[in-house]
Amino acid sequence: MNRAWAVAALALLAAWGAGAEERGMLSAVDFTAVRLEDQFWKPRLDVLRHKTLPHVFEWCERTNRIRNFEVAAGQVAGQHEGYYFNDSDVYKAVEGAAYVLALYPDAEWQKRIERLIATLAAAQQPDGYLNTYFQVAKPGERWTDDRFHELYCAGHLMEAGLAFFQTTGQRTLLDVAARYADHIASVFGPSARLEAPEHPEVELALIKLWRQTHAPRYLDLAKFFVEQRGQARGRPAWGEYAQDHRPVRAQTEVVGHAVRAMYLYSALTDLAAITGDPEYVTVLDQLWQDLVSRKMYITGGIGVSEQNEGFTAGYDLPNEKSYAETCASIGLAVWSTRMNRLHRDARYADVFERVVYNGALSGVALAGDQFLYANPLASRGADAAKHGSGAEGESASHRKPWFKCACCPPNVLRFFPTIGGYVYAVENDALYVNLYVASRAEVALQSTKVTLTQKTAYPWEGRVELRVDPEPSGALSLLLRIPGWCDGARLSLNGEALRDVERTKGYARISRSWKAGDVVALELPMPVVRVECDPRVRDNVGRVALQRGPLVYCLEQADNPGGVLNLAVPSDAALVAEQRPDLLGGVTVIRGSAWRLNAAAWGHQLYRPAPMPQRAEFTAIPYYAWDNRAPGEMTVWVPETPSLTQMPAPPE
Amino acid sequence: MNRAWAVAALALLAAWGAGAEERGMLSAVDFTAVRLEDQFWKPRLDVLRHKTLPHVFEWCERTNRIRNFEVAAGQVAGQHEGYYFNDSDVYKAVEGAAYVLALYPDAEWQKRIERLIATLAAAQQPDGYLNTYFQVAKPGERWTDDRFHELYCAGHLMEAGLAFFQTTGQRTLLDVAARYADHIASVFGPSARLEAPEHPEVELALIKLWRQTHAPRYLDLAKFFVEQRGQARGRPAWGEYAQDHRPVRAQTEVVGHAVRAMYLYSALTDLAAITGDPEYVTVLDQLWQDLVSRKMYITGGIGVSEQNEGFTAGYDLPNEKSYAETCASIGLAVWSTRMNRLHRDARYADVFERVVYNGALSGVALAGDQFLYANPLASRGADAAKHGSGAEGESASHRKPWFKCACCPPNVLRFFPTIGGYVYAVENDALYVNLYVASRAEVALQSTKVTLTQKTAYPWEGRVELRVDPEPSGALSLLLRIPGWCDGARLSLNGEALRDVERTKGYARISRSWKAGDVVALELPMPVVRVECDPRVRDNVGRVALQRGPLVYCLEQADNPGGVLNLAVPSDAALVAEQRPDLLGGVTVIRGSAWRLNAAAWGHQLYRPAPMPQRAEFTAIPYYAWDNRAPGEMTVWVPETPSLTQMPAPPE
Repeated sequence: MNRAWAVAALALLAAWGAGAEERGMLSAVDFTAVRLEDQFWKPRLDVLRHKTLPHVFEWCERTNRIRNFEVAAGQVAGQHEGYYFNDSDVYKAVEGAAYVLALYPDAEWQKRIERLIATLAAAQQPDGYLNTYFQVAKPGERWTDDRFHELYCAGHLMEAGLAFFQTTGQRTLLDVAARYADHIASVFGPSARLEAPEHPEVELALIKLWRQTHAPRYLDLAKFFVEQRGQARGRPAWGEYAQDHRPVRAQTEVVGHAVRAMYLYSALTDLAAITGDPEYVTVLDQLWQDLVSRKMYITGGIGVSEQNEGFTAGYDLPNEKSYAETCASIGLAVWSTRMNRLHRDARYADVFERVVYNGALSGVALAGDQFLYANPLASRGADAAKHGSGAEGESASHRKPWFKCACCPPNVLRFFPTIGGYVYAVENDALYVNLYVASRAEVALQSTKVTLTQKTAYPWEGRVELRVDPEPSGALSLLLRIPGWCDGARLSLNGEALRDVERTKGYARISRSWKAGDVVALELPMPVVRVECDPRVRDNVGRVALQRGPLVYCLEQADNPGGVLNLAVPSDAALVAEQRPDLLGGVTVIRGSAWRLNAAAWGHQLYRPAPMPQRAEFTAIPYYAWDNRAPGEMTVWVPETPSLTQMPAPPE
Repeated sequence: MNRAWAVAALALLAAWGAGAEERGMLSAVDFTAVRLEDQFWKPRLDVLRHKTLPHVFEWCERTNRIRNFEVAAGQVAGQHEGYYFNDSDVYKAVEGAAYVLALYPDAEWQKRIERLIATLAAAQQPDGYLNTYFQVAKPGERWTDDRFHELYCAGHLMEAGLAFFQTTGQRTLLDVAARYADHIASVFGPSARLEAPEHPEVELALIKLWRQTHAPRYLDLAKFFVEQRGQARGRPAWGEYAQDHRPVRAQTEVVGHAVRAMYLYSALTDLAAITGDPEYVTVLDQLWQDLVSRKMYITGGIGVSEQNEGFTAGYDLPNEKSYAETCASIGLAVWSTRMNRLHRDARYADVFERVVYNGALSGVALAGDQFLYANPLASRGADAAKHGSGAEGESASHRKPWFKCACCPPNVLRFFPTIGGYVYAVENDALYVNLYVASRAEVALQSTKVTLTQKTAYPWEGRVELRVDPEPSGALSLLLRIPGWCDGARLSLNGEALRDVERTKGYARISRSWKAGDVVALELPMPVVRVECDPRVRDNVGRVALQRGPLVYCLEQADNPGGVLNLAVPSDAALVAEQRPDLLGGVTVIRGSAWRLNAAAWGHQLYRPAPMPQRAEFTAIPYYAWDNRAPGEMTVWVPETPSLTQMPAPPE
């Protein structure tokens, strides 16, 4: 069974019966059904395939993450190496490889993964248990560490097994995962151990496994783990760090480790849709509101503190010291898309767009083989170490090929190939368009099958033409997301302006009878916007950020050799967007005039009464593309200063 | 021998012979010769006497710092308690008490100190060694810890012994100190151990001891310790942290622990004056330039990092995370006054004024019994802990009565009573006026004795009348410091404007024959000045600080209930100085209009395109007076924003 077949079968199930429990949420249109043809994402998929995929596997081998399985399988002699959760990186790499293979079949790579899967399967113990750390380094101690990172790893094994099965029809790894899930269900549960994993992940994976297998025990176990939160062994065990300070139904604020939070909330969102439990929805809505109105960077980065890799107080969003882990951004993407499908509300897709185009994409270099673990909103470049701003280890402000705790690179590999899966969502005869990206897709609705062709230069230009070819022709509702960043969107149908289009939860809804060749044109004006920040974020008072379309911009020293942390943008400076096909793989930059406080002209006095700024032209680039050149200063939030009319002309 | 007699004798020695080695430097006019009659310092002396003095002794007792001596003396049984350098706090308290007694004789307090001194003397071992930690907790291990904090404590013992002798004529503690110094000279030296203390202090104390006793061995030992720096046991032992990375003659940058640095440079400045060694002067000039042009806060605070209680890279001057220890500010005062007297240059006295009126004075509460260890330039108030900005322990951003490492409170007690000693300095028949403070002083010059009477409301007003009464009448040079912060100073003599007055190294020099009743009037305009910062200090780009006269201002929440970290001052806002005798012991505040970014009006969107600032009146207070009311936000550097003309009127 190949991927396309499997997907088609699943779509049928979802639409006509077996998936009826999931009517609580829109269905995503699988990424394999959407062929990207654009100049933004398609080149990145090529890089993921040719660079990131082999890179991640090379490092999984080089760091003996894969060898740990060979040792556990008895294929080679040796010790376990690395962290007790390193198995998860291999599983995530396999999951990512499966998605790449779904888009770009490759016999050689498939063989390689199959060989690896054989080793993983050989490492599994007869009762289904599989964790190389406990098998090799701590034999006899399985399920004794009460954080149960075995469950975290197991979740990633399930996701990998499902991905490889859905791509290739091969069941080996899925069966390994299911056997492990069955073993887990024999250890944990209402009539077994009343405990939960410290790091959520297995919950959302079990729900995926249930969707594939329809075995109720997996859904029950996922729900059990979610509900055990805050009451494992009858009490909160790990506190806010692991969202374990109280039962999920009583949680109102986003706290603790950001990745843990996102994975938990994602599972909770699935359960809200599946069970229809209104308490779950109330909790999710409160958590969401707390996150987006108090604890999210403009880039969509979340989790400000290196100390807990997570959340602190509301409005505590420092720029240079921001942590904003790449995995947490990916986690927010994963949660926000579920909230969008649960609520049929575009504002969740707005956040998805914000994080994916900015704070998640910044996590991988344009070349695909260097990564950021932390994604700060300002940097002093090479001086960072001297300033004690944490340039060591995972929080380094410059890209590295790998990390000792290597969660981010394989997370990049497993997330971005599926970007096409976030473009559309469906429910009955309603088709939701969440992302604008030049592409061709085939989407099955209740009464018709539609071929959708998007022509657009998004995110660089705001014009989108969407051709709708239904087969057969008929009534359906097209819901186009009007991005939250956009003022003055215009719609036309077959060249005729559409006025008074119904707006529902951020979507423009066009309900009519469609016929082949109908073209909807959406015009999203994309001026450069000065964004200001809630003043409770003290670090951004008096500062502006530049945004154009969905892209948040930053100033980087590579384009501004005199530095960027000494610049201030006048309140009335003209800001001009300019296409630069030569730069950073092709970007639109923003250019304008600024004051530069010139150190050379300043002399030897640290403090002086008279300002002596000079006019300087600046160039801003999209944030996602920073730190792909020489290390240097970078900033997203720039001080805003007196108006340009007060600015002296540059010296002759 | 009472203090006045001793001082007079010393002044004679300095001027006519025995002190001839010190011709390299102006002579300070002792604080006991200057009677303060002003409304700024005099009330603080009263607080020091009535509150700080008993408070410090109470805490030295409560924390068993004094009991450690009783244990060492065999007067009571027990263990040593606290740090191995806690003896120094007792010595500093005694030194401070001696200065207070010199100004305000008090038989009861003198008896109390005499009793304490008897205990200190009883604790001294027969060979002169005295350190309660090593005597009680580590018997047999004296001089084995290669950091030799025994020498740090010994230095403070010498300063205490000298102070009490100079005030009372009683030799007991001075003899204890001298015996200890003799013991030290038997352990360390060119023909003994080639080592040096990790924490400088004994060097400047030995020079003071030499000045009193004229025993060359003390001067030689001081010089030996200074020269051993960077080559103890033939190699750098403690690195930059202790200014031990290289020999002092090769030091060019201010590095490491700030207090250590200031005490070392102070001793080096004394030695430069005494020996006339030009290499010392070159080193000092380089270090000074590095400090004031790259590493000093506008408040005179120094040492930005909590990690090393010291210096980092140049221009690394974060505001909220500033450490700027109170003791380091006092250390800078101590060094800068020596540099002023070495170079006869007013710019060093400018720095003395900056630090004493701002970053040092902020270290003690107006009430005298609460202290700041760290003196940040911005604070979030009660939220600090939640934001992880180090609200625990010594770096707490709110005042505490005491600290586990309690160096700052007794340092405050021993520094501020001597403030009158920084007003004047003399050399031959030249009289330097460094501070403006209402006072009456008797100063012996080479050919005449002068009574000096200053009438002024400085630092609140810039007019100073200085009446000069020489006895006999005759020629002398009066050198008046024209503060670096001042533009357009005007001078008059007996009501007639003086034009084209000679300026020499920041002083206006009036050389003439003076007769009783001559009055010089100095007019120092004191507008509110917006100070900007070298843009290499990235944290202050786009921000201004308000200064008036020598006082740096801050905005504090107590005066601005809506918060201060959400304010921005327009570039053309009128800034008005206003006397507030009712506020904070009587201060001049600065009032003006600002933008307030109002969180209540902002709604639930973290980021939005349109700014919605509101006009708000703000009040700024002198920085030294912050944190004397309810904890709240505070900032020195405020964002500067578009001009007031763009500001909408406040709503009706």
